[in-house]
Amino acid sequence: MSAAPKPMSGVLSPVVTPFAADLSVDMPRMVAHCRCLLDADVGLAVFGTNSEGNSMTIGERTAVLQALTEAGLPADRMMPGTGGCAIPDVVDLTRTAVRMGCGGVLVLPPFYYKGVSDDGLFAFYSEVIERVADERLRLYLYHIPPVAQVPLSLDLVGRLLDRYGSIVAGIKDSGGQWDNTASLIERYASRGLQVFAGSETFLLRTMRAGGAGCISATANVNPAAIVDLHGCWRGADADQKQAALDRIRTMFAAFPMIPAMKHALALATGHEGWRRLRPPLLALPQEQQSAFAQVAQKVGFALTLNAI
Amino acid sequence: MSAAPKPMSGVLSPVVTPFAADLSVDMPRMVAHCRCLLDADVGLAVFGTNSEGNSMTIGERTAVLQALTEAGLPADRMMPGTGGCAIPDVVDLTRTAVRMGCGGVLVLPPFYYKGVSDDGLFAFYSEVIERVADERLRLYLYHIPPVAQVPLSLDLVGRLLDRYGSIVAGIKDSGGQWDNTASLIERYASRGLQVFAGSETFLLRTMRAGGAGCISATANVNPAAIVDLHGCWRGADADQKQAALDRIRTMFAAFPMIPAMKHALALATGHEGWRRLRPPLLALPQEQQSAFAQVAQKVGFALTLNAI
Repeated sequence: MSAAPKPMSGVLSPVVTPFAADLSVDMPRMVAHCRCLLDADVGLAVFGTNSEGNSMTIGERTAVLQALTEAGLPADRMMPGTGGCAIPDVVDLTRTAVRMGCGGVLVLPPFYYKGVSDDGLFAFYSEVIERVADERLRLYLYHIPPVAQVPLSLDLVGRLLDRYGSIVAGIKDSGGQWDNTASLIERYASRGLQVFAGSETFLLRTMRAGGAGCISATANVNPAAIVDLHGCWRGADADQKQAALDRIRTMFAAFPMIPAMKHALALATGHEGWRRLRPPLLALPQEQQSAFAQVAQKVGFALTLNAI
Repeated sequence: MSAAPKPMSGVLSPVVTPFAADLSVDMPRMVAHCRCLLDADVGLAVFGTNSEGNSMTIGERTAVLQALTEAGLPADRMMPGTGGCAIPDVVDLTRTAVRMGCGGVLVLPPFYYKGVSDDGLFAFYSEVIERVADERLRLYLYHIPPVAQVPLSLDLVGRLLDRYGSIVAGIKDSGGQWDNTASLIERYASRGLQVFAGSETFLLRTMRAGGAGCISATANVNPAAIVDLHGCWRGADADQKQAALDRIRTMFAAFPMIPAMKHALALATGHEGWRRLRPPLLALPQEQQSAFAQVAQKVGFALTLNAI
């Protein structure tokens, strides 16, 4: 049996998922995009929110993990999203990821019921961890209240650390509230919790506070510059670099994020299929494509994109 | 090939799901509870919100449908919840239900992404209907914004009716806003849409306005009285009967609904296992069990429960 993976850090991306005309996963293109990201030193948080991970079945996600590892991509650079509403599904995919040697798994809270208690969420994560029953499991919590509408409180994180120690390896904070990320680092980084900002907007602050890095959608389309700031955040020009990242992020945030990133990838690769999303998400409408072109030119985005 | 099922109406219940000690579905007890409900003339909306349907995998839900039909329960009285976030999952379970002869399927919108467009939701339901590709499909839309946080607008319902006619057979309105239910009936009942209130609180108003009935959680624990009002809503004592239903409903609504119903079933059947829920939901805490007993005595609830 292999050893437990090391703590993950740096820049990861919820890898956007390319779909074929019948909306099945376009595996060769998925492998190729993942390779590009790895070449830029971006880790693979496949099946994240911006990957349309929850729009894919457990079977489809398992097949993607198999395709990636069979293509020779390193599993220890993967942090697949394995969360869901049904415990047996979460256990199933998490087990697969652990056995494949993934560096970790990123686990949403169950997101159907709202207003659930910390006790209930603790019981959910406990069931998952105890059913997977593998010391190699490294579970990264996924706090994203704007989408899941089910927050993970600071206290809950502490309770899970108390009970499960190093198995609860980190957290991605996509709440968009710096105070919460800062509190997570302050309270739990010294206990080994790897705290990731959910966007590179908070990357410099996260590094200065003692966090692990960021897991950010826009690392799909601006990987080199984000990785660069992570590598030299102590440099004199770090604030300038952060400002440059912010301009690109702001540009994408002015559009529906996933359609805009897929549109950018279609432009960069010449492959129209990149524009496909699974409903309820839809491709960037024609009029927004024109608006995107204008803004991209203004901030000099095309050059950055060509780098991947 | 069998004919398309007839429009469903009357009283249905999102059947609460009994779990064994390992949290697997307790099939014999599930069959028995469904039989009780059918005996009281309550239809089986298995895998609803109050069934913890989204806490069960597609495989588990398929197995339950098989167990119910193999036990001889009539599929045309079943309206399983087949919604989810991943289209292939929804198509898979919906096809199973149609082939088994289910009276209909109750389909949530995909509930992970928030703020999605009507166009996106239309595309989601279109993909499901066109992939199932079976004229016997009778799809009931499930509007439950307090939980799913993804509403189905009046316009969207109209567009789906325009495009898919009798395949879009009805809607369950669990929004808790009478005006919306009234508008659904006013606009679409004449076109064949079966409009169900999401709670018996609105049953009399729904029937007077020309709706089809209700699909209500508390039909698990108060079936006879709800069915009685549905049967004789034109009677002189209908308002009194509605008021009696409201007293029971209000009692349950003062507690977490699913744990309270399971507690009531544990009391009525003497089977402690009824108290189990899948996390993130939890059993009714001890102190609330005492409070429940007091209120139940006050409104004379035990008698009603004994009737099932």
